Amino acid sequence: MTVKSNKGVILKAYPKGIPEVDKNFELTHRTIDIECLNLKENEFVLRNLYLSIDPYVRVTLHDPALNFMKHGKMISTGQVISGLGVSEIVKTNNPNYKVGDLVYGPIGWEEYSHIKSDDASVFSFMFVNKELLKDTPLSYHASFLRFGGLTSYTSLIDIGKPKEGETIYVSTAAGLTGQLVGQIAKIKGLRVVGSTGSDEKVDFLLNELKFDAAFNYKKVDLDKALSEYCPNGIDIYYDNVGGKTLEVALEHCNRFARVVACGMISQYNIETPEEGYGIKNLANIVVKSIVFQGFIALDYIGKDIEKEFEKDIIEWVKSGKIIYKETVIDGVENIAKAFVDMLNGKNIGKYVIKIADY
Amino acid sequence: MTVKSNKGVILKAYPKGIPEVDKNFELTHRTIDIECLNLKENEFVLRNLYLSIDPYVRVTLHDPALNFMKHGKMISTGQVISGLGVSEIVKTNNPNYKVGDLVYGPIGWEEYSHIKSDDASVFSFMFVNKELLKDTPLSYHASFLRFGGLTSYTSLIDIGKPKEGETIYVSTAAGLTGQLVGQIAKIKGLRVVGSTGSDEKVDFLLNELKFDAAFNYKKVDLDKALSEYCPNGIDIYYDNVGGKTLEVALEHCNRFARVVACGMISQYNIETPEEGYGIKNLANIVVKSIVFQGFIALDYIGKDIEKEFEKDIIEWVKSGKIIYKETVIDGVENIAKAFVDMLNGKNIGKYVIKIADY
Repeated sequence: MTVKSNKGVILKAYPKGIPEVDKNFELTHRTIDIECLNLKENEFVLRNLYLSIDPYVRVTLHDPALNFMKHGKMISTGQVISGLGVSEIVKTNNPNYKVGDLVYGPIGWEEYSHIKSDDASVFSFMFVNKELLKDTPLSYHASFLRFGGLTSYTSLIDIGKPKEGETIYVSTAAGLTGQLVGQIAKIKGLRVVGSTGSDEKVDFLLNELKFDAAFNYKKVDLDKALSEYCPNGIDIYYDNVGGKTLEVALEHCNRFARVVACGMISQYNIETPEEGYGIKNLANIVVKSIVFQGFIALDYIGKDIEKEFEKDIIEWVKSGKIIYKETVIDGVENIAKAFVDMLNGKNIGKYVIKIADY
Repeated sequence: MTVKSNKGVILKAYPKGIPEVDKNFELTHRTIDIECLNLKENEFVLRNLYLSIDPYVRVTLHDPALNFMKHGKMISTGQVISGLGVSEIVKTNNPNYKVGDLVYGPIGWEEYSHIKSDDASVFSFMFVNKELLKDTPLSYHASFLRFGGLTSYTSLIDIGKPKEGETIYVSTAAGLTGQLVGQIAKIKGLRVVGSTGSDEKVDFLLNELKFDAAFNYKKVDLDKALSEYCPNGIDIYYDNVGGKTLEVALEHCNRFARVVACGMISQYNIETPEEGYGIKNLANIVVKSIVFQGFIALDYIGKDIEKEFEKDIIEWVKSGKIIYKETVIDGVENIAKAFVDMLNGKNIGKYVIKIADY
């Protein structure tokens, strides 16, 4: 039988605010006949194995009629949602890929993805590093050893420019990015302060990741907390949230501070510019000679720092200098719930969906 | 007779909004007896010659009870206001300075300034460059050849990183900083677009400074104007104003754009954070990998780029590649009016006050 199940998750309705599983997503029970599928030039078919659950995906779900944030690949209602993951090539008409290759790139929230030629470049789909695979589970290659870890490492080193003895404040510190940034900053000799949204996560940051200080932002006045936990001011603010947190952090920044603009999760669920939080104290950037810089992980692909990342991260994980915490959840039918839970801050560590056995 | 007139301008009342001459400033007719004045260790007395009229001074006049912007040297009511200028040392108890030396630094809005030891460091008061003085009037040394020009040059080169063929948008383009930034960008081969507050200044930018495009921001919709004049988007936004202008410019920035945060004149007259303009679209910084960086000219003192600035600027002025337009106004009694006029955008080019003959 060549016809296979190809369950997938489509966008049912553009979310307003934080999405809800039943309202905004729909599981579809489609099939795919791989043998009979006719591939055009450069096309290929993926059997998806592990999918990374990332906040950026929320930005791709905005109603185009309302959306003001431009993002590379927007999803329309009725379309399968896209995310980053690891897959096996099962059919190919592309000279760069052969059947059996393991690749990392933008895949569908589905069992099999038919990649059209526009998306089939070697820039979009990278090979899984086989050397690293000897020492690490395949799930790590869906995010931690790729854009997930690369995001933390490159931006902290290249934009944050950490120096021993400095203070770094990390928001959403218990997420994948925050965890890694904090731990790398510890290795570099900084005072590491993190905020997160539950007492359980505070414990995790303090007791497992050994942050110097951590607090539950829902329970404190941020201004007072930063005065208490960053008594020498902030030299690096690693910003995953934007909005009010950014505004308060700017007041605590020292001269020549670096603000790494990694994400603005507080602004991802808004639909119109008017709903956005207005930052009123950017004059701090002028009077304190602050660098406030955005980036995406893709900016660093192919640069020397990508190689340095692979070398360092493997050594740190092997030697136990860095703890990487992930939760692997089974099945396409659980993607939407994992995504919504992550946006609601329920995860400790990284959510990865296991779509199929390898 | 050793007693001399020492007219000065004191702060009468903290301004709300743009200051008014009679309401906020007071001319005082004091005297000074230089011969009898007892100088403590490191102190000296300046005979002030030229004073630069700069927007940053507004930030130093905030009521400390209301002010939220921290600035190095705040002025209290009853105190003589401070600004940058050129002076002659007329009495000294400081081994670094001798009578007759010409220096540049933070002087009072007054005829003579008694510099106390806290302010008497060689870092605060630099010597006027005698080599440059052979080719240039002394008034140029009160701003253009010092922090005025240095501000434009260093920030454009170091933060803006201009590349041939790129587009730069400069706000308050007819001020000293804007003029120089635009002209240096032309020399570097960029498309230069400027905005300013009167048709007369638009003419000046287009016809004298040869900007590629210029417009009166009071007469246009900024979003439409930027679409029209920056058809390939903005690669460098040189921001002198902040607020709404910054918000609109961010929408027109290209990937990897650089935003040079030189000043936020639109935010200098506000007294509380609540009055500030809230920027709602900072997510552009994340998704477009934008660098948004502040600085003060002092950051570059003693670095190689300071020497490069002096070399280039003199060559450009001599060869006519750069036009520097200044208006020299006579007398301490006209300082407050010149300052208020500048804040109201009445100047074309740089206002410099001539306090005394040299």
